[in-house]
Amino acid sequence: MQVGLPGRLALVSFLVVAPAASGLAATDPLREQAKELFQPIPTNPPALPDNPATPAKVELGRMLYFEPRLSESHNISCNSCHLIGLGGADGRPNSIGHNWQRGGRNAPTVLNAVFNTAQFWDGRAADLKEQAGGPIANPIEMGITKEHAVEQLKGIPGYVEAFRQAFPGEADPITYANIEAAIAVFEATLITPGAPFDRWLEGDDAALDEAQKQGLAIFLEKGCASCHNGINLGGGMYAPFGVVQKPGWEFLPPNDRGRFQVTNTVEDDYFFKVPSLRNIELTAPYFHSGHAWGLEQAVAVMGQSQLGENLTEREIEQVTAFLRALTGEQPQVPFPILPPSVATTPRPEP
Amino acid sequence: MQVGLPGRLALVSFLVVAPAASGLAATDPLREQAKELFQPIPTNPPALPDNPATPAKVELGRMLYFEPRLSESHNISCNSCHLIGLGGADGRPNSIGHNWQRGGRNAPTVLNAVFNTAQFWDGRAADLKEQAGGPIANPIEMGITKEHAVEQLKGIPGYVEAFRQAFPGEADPITYANIEAAIAVFEATLITPGAPFDRWLEGDDAALDEAQKQGLAIFLEKGCASCHNGINLGGGMYAPFGVVQKPGWEFLPPNDRGRFQVTNTVEDDYFFKVPSLRNIELTAPYFHSGHAWGLEQAVAVMGQSQLGENLTEREIEQVTAFLRALTGEQPQVPFPILPPSVATTPRPEP
Repeated sequence: MQVGLPGRLALVSFLVVAPAASGLAATDPLREQAKELFQPIPTNPPALPDNPATPAKVELGRMLYFEPRLSESHNISCNSCHLIGLGGADGRPNSIGHNWQRGGRNAPTVLNAVFNTAQFWDGRAADLKEQAGGPIANPIEMGITKEHAVEQLKGIPGYVEAFRQAFPGEADPITYANIEAAIAVFEATLITPGAPFDRWLEGDDAALDEAQKQGLAIFLEKGCASCHNGINLGGGMYAPFGVVQKPGWEFLPPNDRGRFQVTNTVEDDYFFKVPSLRNIELTAPYFHSGHAWGLEQAVAVMGQSQLGENLTEREIEQVTAFLRALTGEQPQVPFPILPPSVATTPRPEP
Repeated sequence: MQVGLPGRLALVSFLVVAPAASGLAATDPLREQAKELFQPIPTNPPALPDNPATPAKVELGRMLYFEPRLSESHNISCNSCHLIGLGGADGRPNSIGHNWQRGGRNAPTVLNAVFNTAQFWDGRAADLKEQAGGPIANPIEMGITKEHAVEQLKGIPGYVEAFRQAFPGEADPITYANIEAAIAVFEATLITPGAPFDRWLEGDDAALDEAQKQGLAIFLEKGCASCHNGINLGGGMYAPFGVVQKPGWEFLPPNDRGRFQVTNTVEDDYFFKVPSLRNIELTAPYFHSGHAWGLEQAVAVMGQSQLGENLTEREIEQVTAFLRALTGEQPQVPFPILPPSVATTPRPEP
């Protein structure tokens, strides 16, 4: 689903019938409207189609996620740019890869990425599995070839055993597809339930304060939720950056045409996947270009470029208060003990 | 203490009086000799002089250890080169630092480093605290200035609070010295008790197999323990690389004169701190130059250069079997949740 212009959300006045004398709180129209648009993050990781999780596979995925030997230099892992303790991103405009090369776009968060309909800012990967394999073999990121990545792991006895356990019954379990599959099932565990907003959505009136509720009301009324909706408040569709007014080159550098570069279709020019707003306070700088360093600034730019709204300072404060209520419980992940190299293990690029 | 030539250990024949009819096993002369030279890793972290550990300080140290914003690029942390899951090192000959510059020597393991008498290959840091501050401010490693490191953390509200808790009563707790102190108390927790050798040392006969005991006997008889002794089987003294015969340039590059570069004293030429052999199977490649990729190769080179011994293949096998018994329980460290940057936080070098 793509939108050209964000239809303002119809602010349906729900006909609320208060449960008379039942002792239940009267239904909250704001919550009822929100429940139509958003869903809380579940407590348990979702199942992945065609990629069932087992403890052995998740454990292998955790190892591979932190494994620098999946890079040509043995210096870069998934966690180098998607730090589990830093909101699942790296806090830089763009990431630093092989030979200190810079990535083209701001590293999106891995947290809750499982709930996005596609991966990367331009949606060029259909799912986590396909995404996981991208940076490993990208010459400016981890910079290894798929063949070498497989040979590398085959040269580490502990991985031979770990893949056997994660992919039982396979004659030759260390394959690039299985590397991707294991990382994907681990990444699917990186979800952040329990955000104040989710607790409020589920009925806890006190989970949001007044400023946050005001912010939510503005978020709905101004039309933010036209794109930022669903379980991730984003991640479900593509939208042009600059629906109403194109932002300046700093935020929308002309050489990055976004989704166009995948579809080669002019109508996708400068379209990007709508990013999730989950844990957004943890992942500055913002936008695919990574040049908005404050949440307030990002909200102001969004108002102007996507909605044609010059939000007041007070409105921006309230919206950002709401956005800060989207921070959930961060995943507690033990740093994995990685299997040692041996004398015959392929060596890093000098 | 420095040695010029390794005195062969006197193989004292302990006069063993078996406890007659007591039901206790007869005293094992090999163990008795070993107990004179080695101590097991304790279960609990040792206290640091003038740097008392508190839960808040250890927790802060854990955050700082994994904190990439302590580097100029926001891309490198302590854990980039001393990976907790990779034997406390990085598996490269030398490490990759700021702007992809290479370090001069192989990254030593952080595991059990608290038990070394000094830090770095040349002992230029007296303790963990002093060591911790080195790479952060080294232009080819994390590449930040001490002043900027302090300003960086002061710009992150979560650290203002974390330092207040870790250093209660201090008016201005975010200082470079306190960064070092917090990292040091965390690093002191990175110890690896429970190695088979330690369990054997403490009386568990079955903890070592016959090859490992043979290896230990060779280790003692040939003189390895002249330098590799104490709790860390190393880390307690300086020794020249090439006591008997200087190894080739690959292992002993002539431009790195080791301890000489600290003391500027010719008698320290090509002296290096004797590395610990704890967890040695996890930390290839070996030597300060990081060019020996196999443990067997490293043992053979040591035999020739330090002892003038051409060890047989069988002896090398047995010694390496013993060395593999030095691998202890690896630390289980949760990846810390780092406090988020805000709009005013100092930004990474672009």
